[in-house]
Amino acid sequence: MADTPQRVPRDVRMQGFAERASLNEAIAWVDRYSRIQDAESVALGGAVGRILAEPLLSPADVPPADTASHDGYALRSCETVGAGSYNPLPFCLQDYQPPLSPFSAALVTNGTTLPMGADAVAPFDLAQAGPEGANLIGSVARGEGVSVKGQEVQMGTTLIETSRQLRASDIGLISSFGIKRVSVIRRPLVRLLLVGRKSSKVGKLADANGPMLRALVVRDGGTVEICRYGIKERGAIEEWIARPGADLVLVCGRTGVGPDDEAPLALAAGGTLSLHGIAVRPGGTTGMGCVGEIPVILLPGSPLDCLHAYDLFAGRLIRNLSGRAPSLPYRVRQGKLKRKIVSSVGTVELCRVLLIAGDVIPLGNDDSGGLASVVRADGFIMIPATLEGYAPGATMDVYTYDEPHGVEGN
Amino acid sequence: MADTPQRVPRDVRMQGFAERASLNEAIAWVDRYSRIQDAESVALGGAVGRILAEPLLSPADVPPADTASHDGYALRSCETVGAGSYNPLPFCLQDYQPPLSPFSAALVTNGTTLPMGADAVAPFDLAQAGPEGANLIGSVARGEGVSVKGQEVQMGTTLIETSRQLRASDIGLISSFGIKRVSVIRRPLVRLLLVGRKSSKVGKLADANGPMLRALVVRDGGTVEICRYGIKERGAIEEWIARPGADLVLVCGRTGVGPDDEAPLALAAGGTLSLHGIAVRPGGTTGMGCVGEIPVILLPGSPLDCLHAYDLFAGRLIRNLSGRAPSLPYRVRQGKLKRKIVSSVGTVELCRVLLIAGDVIPLGNDDSGGLASVVRADGFIMIPATLEGYAPGATMDVYTYDEPHGVEGN
Repeated sequence: MADTPQRVPRDVRMQGFAERASLNEAIAWVDRYSRIQDAESVALGGAVGRILAEPLLSPADVPPADTASHDGYALRSCETVGAGSYNPLPFCLQDYQPPLSPFSAALVTNGTTLPMGADAVAPFDLAQAGPEGANLIGSVARGEGVSVKGQEVQMGTTLIETSRQLRASDIGLISSFGIKRVSVIRRPLVRLLLVGRKSSKVGKLADANGPMLRALVVRDGGTVEICRYGIKERGAIEEWIARPGADLVLVCGRTGVGPDDEAPLALAAGGTLSLHGIAVRPGGTTGMGCVGEIPVILLPGSPLDCLHAYDLFAGRLIRNLSGRAPSLPYRVRQGKLKRKIVSSVGTVELCRVLLIAGDVIPLGNDDSGGLASVVRADGFIMIPATLEGYAPGATMDVYTYDEPHGVEGN
Repeated sequence: MADTPQRVPRDVRMQGFAERASLNEAIAWVDRYSRIQDAESVALGGAVGRILAEPLLSPADVPPADTASHDGYALRSCETVGAGSYNPLPFCLQDYQPPLSPFSAALVTNGTTLPMGADAVAPFDLAQAGPEGANLIGSVARGEGVSVKGQEVQMGTTLIETSRQLRASDIGLISSFGIKRVSVIRRPLVRLLLVGRKSSKVGKLADANGPMLRALVVRDGGTVEICRYGIKERGAIEEWIARPGADLVLVCGRTGVGPDDEAPLALAAGGTLSLHGIAVRPGGTTGMGCVGEIPVILLPGSPLDCLHAYDLFAGRLIRNLSGRAPSLPYRVRQGKLKRKIVSSVGTVELCRVLLIAGDVIPLGNDDSGGLASVVRADGFIMIPATLEGYAPGATMDVYTYDEPHGVEGN
């Protein structure tokens, strides 16, 4: 598919989908439009979870000189030979600054550079206070209690690769070099187009998708710009997808086969509609295309479909743009199916499940159950398009929902 | 230990620890001082990752009435009997509003309430446009394409328990009921006491602990107030731990056996020092106590020790206060030890490791390697106090560092 020109999807309104792209075709499209963002400089304190634009090389040796690795007396190890409880050896205490005099010791704390002449640090429990200083009641070997210059990190070695989100400990290590700012992959700006409430119709619930998608985009490394348009504003979708500034546009709703499902047409008119209709359930009315260089993903308006389509396609695109791993950000656990699941051949079905003590209990793989079925679930399984389902006892991967979510910052 | 009075730890400066509390004693202390925070009301959009103060009951049925579960023609199912490609049955199209006339159909979109009289929704691909409306080319069963009132959620049932951090999908479902604010467990305010740089001493690195601890506290659900004091400010620790306002005080550094390690004394003077010295490595100089009702944890100043002591004790306390699960927020994976590890009996040792294709490769379980050894590691293992180490080939749990981190927000 990569090299052949796209078939132009036809208008499905009041007709239904004659054909749908496969999940793999849709994912290939997402990855093709995933150009990683450029770099920006951010304050180190705000860089947790971000991805470095370049590998970070150590600007110095750690430790920068031979230092004490614990508190105690810095001294010459050779002068402690023979010391013991029955043969305490007296050491004069001297200032830290000048070179060590013979049979003298200087108080040092963990992390301080050894005074010149010292080659070991005796811990306090190896000494007793004496009249002039300390009496050693045990010997120490050369290098004991000492971190040698460059022992932890040598200058110029790679400290942190660009393949992971910065951890708290990374921030600590970077900070220890006196570095205040780092260059990281810029967060993609995601424009989220939401239709205003269909207030004229009875029984519609308030907007679930806006707050949900905002949280998901932030989780995956993006920032969000929400644009709402009235249901009757003709041309609003076309206008918003064409307006510059966003790195990715998500249109939520109006992707189905109803008479007012104009999102695919608006994208085709303002840019290119590459795919509409994907053989996945929920989420089958998803569409994809471009306006100029900017990818546009059309997400179904039903919250359950919207969530799954976001995770499979939009979230992947955002993770790619952010420099993160493209895979689903859910922990995979293995489980054993408790009862039979039936699935349609030709369609990948996502089935919400409970995972209780290793047992996978399906909550429904059709579109029923709504967003509440996700909220009740521990996770979901993906049933390949080639299968008619699973028999009880089958072992499978469950994508579990218990990941911590990022909180919006900045 | 819970019911016996605490032994008062002695001054260890320039002496060393005569005895240390066990890891379990220290964790029991943490859990005893873990009173969950009270509730606060927050905007729904900022509630991702928070914990509900009370279980959320559904304020309505979902759907609130019988609704279309896909786009199509709402009609009476009994009137479609016998329809087929060779026997198209004509239906008049009528407005959505009035009750359905005989052999009439109304256009509906996914989620709209069925017009009175309709009991099924025929998808568009089951109809062809005819002169007066639509010709049905197949029959539909009663209830097809319909979500029955309360099918997804019944009013009054528990939607979300208080046992988990709110997910994006939870936010979406809550929003769908028109709820704008939720009552969640308040974030504990963590006061972080850091000593100013020991600028007079050669070879000291810049502060690693401040930025690292800030990120960790935010990850575990707290907010941070950083207070710095000069190395020569006598009484500064005592003043800051006594000042009201914080839910937990972390003192970073000055916990060891050096002459200026005054943190334990300051806590004993201003409040109660319950434990000082724990049989864990790194992190063995950690101390714990209270000022009034406020727990105070003394963390070692060496960043490696500080990180491990934070994770085992301070992080657990913050997770407890926040209503989260107390366990370490790292994914546990199993691995097989590649080469022998030696450990001291009587001390729990944390050993940084690489985890490569199931092989556990130790990076060092002593204090050497510093924070850089954490940055290089994929995670760590915990060697129980009862063991002298592990033989090659032993199977063990690895706590891996690849969790996403929260970003500071409000």
